[in-house]
Amino acid sequence: MRAVVHVTLKKTVLDPQGRTICSTLNGLGHGNIVDVRQGKYFEIELDGDMDEVREQIDKIAHDVLANPVIEEYRVDVED
Amino acid sequence: MRAVVHVTLKKTVLDPQGRTICSTLNGLGHGNIVDVRQGKYFEIELDGDMDEVREQIDKIAHDVLANPVIEEYRVDVED
Repeated sequence: MRAVVHVTLKKTVLDPQGRTICSTLNGLGHGNIVDVRQGKYFEIELDGDMDEVREQIDKIAHDVLANPVIEEYRVDVED
Repeated sequence: MRAVVHVTLKKTVLDPQGRTICSTLNGLGHGNIVDVRQGKYFEIELDGDMDEVREQIDKIAHDVLANPVIEEYRVDVED
């Protein structure tokens, strides 16, 4: 089974890395780029039952992969 | 318009950060985790026509966001 976790900064939190990429792209001639936000992406291979795995990955995302103070996460589990 | 780019290490390239997360999770009692791969994730807000935007983002992913020697990327464009 495979789980995918996306971790991104909350919309209200400034993303300086994303801002830098955005202004670099504008400088390279991509003037139509309005905003860039960078996040992290995890592919997790694991064994187990669908429902238990979803709960487990949700806990892992909350406790280990993301900092819930400034980040939000999305979990997708595929068979 | 919004484009999403996922950048991951090629399957043949060792991912030490992912291995560390995997063994940490195993140590925390998540023994069913077999493998973890970490990647980067970009959300790009931009203006333009769907087909042109796809080509533009593909070029940006190749030239700026990913290192094609060791990384591969996936581009998704949403209206």
